Amino acid sequence: MELFYLERTDPGLDSVEFRGAEARHIARVLRHRVGDRIWATDGLGTELELELKTVAPDRVAGLVKSRRTRPREPRCLLTLAQGVLKGNGLSRVVEGATQVGVAGIILLNTQRTVGRVSDRKRSRLGKVAVEAMKVSTRTVAPVVSGPISIGELEGRIAEYELALIAYEEEKKTGLDGFLYRTPSSVLVIVGPEGGFEPAEVVRLRQAGARPFSMGPRRLRADTAGIVASAMLLQMTGDLGPDRRNML
Amino acid sequence: MELFYLERTDPGLDSVEFRGAEARHIARVLRHRVGDRIWATDGLGTELELELKTVAPDRVAGLVKSRRTRPREPRCLLTLAQGVLKGNGLSRVVEGATQVGVAGIILLNTQRTVGRVSDRKRSRLGKVAVEAMKVSTRTVAPVVSGPISIGELEGRIAEYELALIAYEEEKKTGLDGFLYRTPSSVLVIVGPEGGFEPAEVVRLRQAGARPFSMGPRRLRADTAGIVASAMLLQMTGDLGPDRRNML
Repeated sequence: MELFYLERTDPGLDSVEFRGAEARHIARVLRHRVGDRIWATDGLGTELELELKTVAPDRVAGLVKSRRTRPREPRCLLTLAQGVLKGNGLSRVVEGATQVGVAGIILLNTQRTVGRVSDRKRSRLGKVAVEAMKVSTRTVAPVVSGPISIGELEGRIAEYELALIAYEEEKKTGLDGFLYRTPSSVLVIVGPEGGFEPAEVVRLRQAGARPFSMGPRRLRADTAGIVASAMLLQMTGDLGPDRRNML
Repeated sequence: MELFYLERTDPGLDSVEFRGAEARHIARVLRHRVGDRIWATDGLGTELELELKTVAPDRVAGLVKSRRTRPREPRCLLTLAQGVLKGNGLSRVVEGATQVGVAGIILLNTQRTVGRVSDRKRSRLGKVAVEAMKVSTRTVAPVVSGPISIGELEGRIAEYELALIAYEEEKKTGLDGFLYRTPSSVLVIVGPEGGFEPAEVVRLRQAGARPFSMGPRRLRADTAGIVASAMLLQMTGDLGPDRRNML
């Protein structure tokens, strides 16, 4: 299945059109023809099944045949708060975590953060999320927001049913200590290169977040963000067969 | 904890020396001094605690104070068979899977494989594994072997207690269908970009491997190799607190 990106999928629409790169891709690269069925998403949870009516490199138009909401999305809404990384680290995290299935990514400035996130960089990360959404056939492109401070993050912890900190110094409690029931929303907080200052963890704990161990081996920060997301969604049953339709 | 790489750690040795890049790193970058304690590994499971006796940019020597075998290693020996990827894909997989904790990586040529692995590239991947081992404070650098064919892989499946195929078309069985007990050795097989041909999966099944679903979203092949390794080691209890010393 190939999934294309549409800016608008308003409920009233019975036909849609692609312009620019998506139109070229459909017409030139994939050589679709009038009458073909394709699928498109707005990155906000809507998936449209389309029958192509016009196919040209600068404009592709299709009739809406059916409409679905959030197919293939995890039941657990997982938000990843990721310490800002230098170089391509954040891009790798956004790409991997989007494929795994996170609902949102909050960039986090911490004491040990090296590097900063300009508006231009954040907008580029948003595009990485849209591309990764298409690759993974998701219908939700996680919003990349921030960067915010630890103080601002503290104020948001209560919005989640469960908030967890991937913390190297936690030696006793694993993820299995928290997921005896499936939470509907989880925040997973992962530090930058070099990890969190102990005082930052104290503050996050006081705000309600709980540290957990990812094992005795050290994960580099970009790997940690992706692996923590995968561990979480595996434990909520979202990295296996989709059993919703079987209930 | 910083872990340095030593080529030789023979059981009889009571002192060791570093040359080249490791010596420069210890002396120049980290500015260690005579009398400091440092840790070193041979990538084959041995960890040495050293007391530094000589510190110069071209030669660092230390006295062996203690010796441990395979600290922090997963109990489950996990081998990742990864379809060959083009570009930097394999390098990302070796890096991430090593940090997560795989014991070995077998490169796999399949029908949909694009790109090839020269001896030079494989040797470079071996260096990536050693670097990732150091980053993650492991004492085992996974051997990167192959590439081998599906036929050759079939012949090796019986060496593992459990062999699994990450397969997009498997819709019913998740990883939890296999891990009701903890296997001591597992082979996880992940395809290249574009996945396996159905006929390849049939052959691997006949040889004893079992397909499992990683969920309804598509993971790009390099993400899939890392995430499959993490899912497996999470289920065997190897991505949480080290409980061996608590038994």
